[in-house]
Amino acid sequence: MSKEITSRAEDYSQWYNDLVIKGQLADYSAVRGCMVIKPYGFALWENMRDALDKMFKDTGHVNAYFPLFIPKSFLSKEAAHVEGFAKECAVVTHYRLKNDPNGGGIIVDPDAKLEEELIVRPTSETIIWNTYKDWIQSYRDLPLLINQWANVVRWEMRTRLFLRTAEFLWQEGHTAHATKEEAIEETKKMLDVYADFVENWMALPVIKGIKTESERFAGAEDTYCIEALMQDGKALQAGTSHFLGQNFAKAFDVKFSNKENQLDYVWATSWGVSTRLVGALVMAHSDDQGLILPPRIAPWQVVIVPIYKGEEQKAMIDVKAKELIASLKDKGIRVKYDDNDNARPGWKFAEYEMKGVPVRITLGARDLENNLAEIARRDTKEKKSISMDGLPEQISDLLEEIQQNMFNRAKHYRDEHITPADTWEQFEKLLDEKTGFISAHWDGTAETEEAIKDKTKATIRCIPLANKQETGKCILSGKDSVQRVLFARAY
Amino acid sequence: MSKEITSRAEDYSQWYNDLVIKGQLADYSAVRGCMVIKPYGFALWENMRDALDKMFKDTGHVNAYFPLFIPKSFLSKEAAHVEGFAKECAVVTHYRLKNDPNGGGIIVDPDAKLEEELIVRPTSETIIWNTYKDWIQSYRDLPLLINQWANVVRWEMRTRLFLRTAEFLWQEGHTAHATKEEAIEETKKMLDVYADFVENWMALPVIKGIKTESERFAGAEDTYCIEALMQDGKALQAGTSHFLGQNFAKAFDVKFSNKENQLDYVWATSWGVSTRLVGALVMAHSDDQGLILPPRIAPWQVVIVPIYKGEEQKAMIDVKAKELIASLKDKGIRVKYDDNDNARPGWKFAEYEMKGVPVRITLGARDLENNLAEIARRDTKEKKSISMDGLPEQISDLLEEIQQNMFNRAKHYRDEHITPADTWEQFEKLLDEKTGFISAHWDGTAETEEAIKDKTKATIRCIPLANKQETGKCILSGKDSVQRVLFARAY
Repeated sequence: MSKEITSRAEDYSQWYNDLVIKGQLADYSAVRGCMVIKPYGFALWENMRDALDKMFKDTGHVNAYFPLFIPKSFLSKEAAHVEGFAKECAVVTHYRLKNDPNGGGIIVDPDAKLEEELIVRPTSETIIWNTYKDWIQSYRDLPLLINQWANVVRWEMRTRLFLRTAEFLWQEGHTAHATKEEAIEETKKMLDVYADFVENWMALPVIKGIKTESERFAGAEDTYCIEALMQDGKALQAGTSHFLGQNFAKAFDVKFSNKENQLDYVWATSWGVSTRLVGALVMAHSDDQGLILPPRIAPWQVVIVPIYKGEEQKAMIDVKAKELIASLKDKGIRVKYDDNDNARPGWKFAEYEMKGVPVRITLGARDLENNLAEIARRDTKEKKSISMDGLPEQISDLLEEIQQNMFNRAKHYRDEHITPADTWEQFEKLLDEKTGFISAHWDGTAETEEAIKDKTKATIRCIPLANKQETGKCILSGKDSVQRVLFARAY
Repeated sequence: MSKEITSRAEDYSQWYNDLVIKGQLADYSAVRGCMVIKPYGFALWENMRDALDKMFKDTGHVNAYFPLFIPKSFLSKEAAHVEGFAKECAVVTHYRLKNDPNGGGIIVDPDAKLEEELIVRPTSETIIWNTYKDWIQSYRDLPLLINQWANVVRWEMRTRLFLRTAEFLWQEGHTAHATKEEAIEETKKMLDVYADFVENWMALPVIKGIKTESERFAGAEDTYCIEALMQDGKALQAGTSHFLGQNFAKAFDVKFSNKENQLDYVWATSWGVSTRLVGALVMAHSDDQGLILPPRIAPWQVVIVPIYKGEEQKAMIDVKAKELIASLKDKGIRVKYDDNDNARPGWKFAEYEMKGVPVRITLGARDLENNLAEIARRDTKEKKSISMDGLPEQISDLLEEIQQNMFNRAKHYRDEHITPADTWEQFEKLLDEKTGFISAHWDGTAETEEAIKDKTKATIRCIPLANKQETGKCILSGKDSVQRVLFARAY
């Protein structure tokens, strides 16, 4: 069949691309660096989005929508922010096209030049804080707990489907608070929400930590992150939550009168996850036969494939299938019945294996005579024949079991790939041979961090929260260190 | 209080703006023509979006996501389409900013000019059909029934919150079919879905019809529409569904092999509704005290306001309120309990009236002693005291009644405002005095249609589906006509 995919051992990067394309998650587009999210990939993203959205709402947040465009001058208002974000971005300079008077098709109308260029948002702190200025006068207007689901654009030079695209979909939370403590609490709360989501819905264990100054979000006082590990031993930043201090309030002059009737600048946070998480999901769980999707977010949790000869057998199976589908749906299980006549069962098996559907139920005419169905789980590839009686309950339990197994498997791999290094030689050897996170002492300077990155391409992924304090010597400089930090090569 | 709004009689247009701003639906932004959709407005849009999304899925459609940017050359590929859409749009010409070497802040980097300009999508037919080319080979790949929720940009010169903004949110369905008949059936089916949604969720009666050639979507063979009537007697196009023939398939060379193994061009439809519907909702139902939202899409269906003196009364009311909220939520009713201490009940009453919450329940300490609560409905402003026993059931029924009453009221107004005109004098008089739809004979030519528009600003809103055929004389030219069409001034 044409669906063959490159194995991980042969070419991990090509394996990933094959999965995304042949698993029907996304496609390249005619626009450099932008992708098309295909229906199957979008259904997966919808399930992720809906679960997260509910978690945001359950923690008191509301959604809103801010403009796609940001006036160029806004980006300059926060000094660190402009350095980080005003580089590679899409710039709108004109607002009209016209027919070329010389017959050259349509051209940009030179008379329709904008007075001030507009930037397609790479992130929305500036436009949002410019708006909050009008919304916040008093402590009674606080906190503002607002989230936005949106598309953003960063003109990346090297792009990869889901992992790094010029346009991507994400959510960005932007909250405003009366006190520093409350803002920090919010920053941490949202990190916990992200960790909860990624671990319990995506079945992907994460390490919660804090970024070093060099890796911080441009404009933040502190950036908290969750870091996950992919099957090739590279780390992937799965979400970030930023404590922005009063930086954006100062940049956009957002003051409020506090309970003592004194004017003060408002405290801020922002936090986001994106379609990049789909890439993480693919890389963390899949195998050489295709995707393996966690039941809680899989577009279809169960696929039913009938095997029959002739109309009579088909009719009999249809009756059983309909009953089964109804009971599965009653349990809230997302099920697809594939009785498409144009494809053989074997082709379908490979197709749903490729697409990572957690459970396949095969209804064969002969088995059904004995009241049996065959169930196959995608994560372990185990198959067994079981009685049709009580099947929905068993499937429901099995889906839970698969979810848990996927998490355990990923956690086992991750835990096996956190290795301490005490010498520079160990450090380099681990990076090249075992890969994964390396726990090592660092002298706390940006210079050393940079030197390690230059030599090895490894970065400090995070300083884990509640990190053990222990004295030691920096892996590179040999200077005194008070704690180990986690290094890795990363996506 | 500061919340006073201009009355409809005084200034309809200002009344509308007041409602949108003071009702907390949206706000102006720093970017010309772009608005901020505020949390309350966005919650309303989310309810509308979710209801529509379910209807799309129930009719077999799936969601996907296509790039924000469209290469300039794509717009030229369909001749009529480029005329309609390649005019006022946001053009991305560069992909980088840099620090001005002369110290003038950040400037567009002249070295980062795109080889081909990118257009921020005004609609996505071109980029989508360019993609479908890769997805469709055989009749087995058809139909494709894909929808996208997205932001689009049209550089409008005169903008109004929700009704006409440079950036707006919408959904755009793009389907591909093997036969002309199937595509036309899809076009009509989606028109029915829109009519069902607008009438049964937004409580707004619509007229289904077909556009004249001049009013057709640029690139369509036929444009079907639903037209609604606002309280000032102007019409508003609430949704369109286009039969695109093979125009885009030909422009992007999308062919498929049919069952007879012959190559043919694919048949297409597209259909969309946008955040403009929020504007329609506001204009159709609200009054001089504020918004009136239909229960089925209102962010809060019920607000509970406690009235008390002192902690003891408050504690007693809290207990009753919690019970009530739990039973309302059990019934799937969206309820807000406003026990905010900072505002007086009278202020709250006005606030929720402004926001159009369908039902207000007042829990007063004295009433509660008699097991009574006061309920006030927003649509008729009726108030009555009723027993707390069975209150949830009564509220549930009342919400249904309000939904129905709002529809009936809008339908009564609409039906009263469809008036036949048989002479030009009548026509002009009706337009200026009675307003609404005018049913009149038209000779079927674009010239006459244009002349009527020039003279009166009235356009042909649609030729109603299943229109009665009757001979007559064109209202302007006096030439023979076979049917009446609906004219109106419109948003």
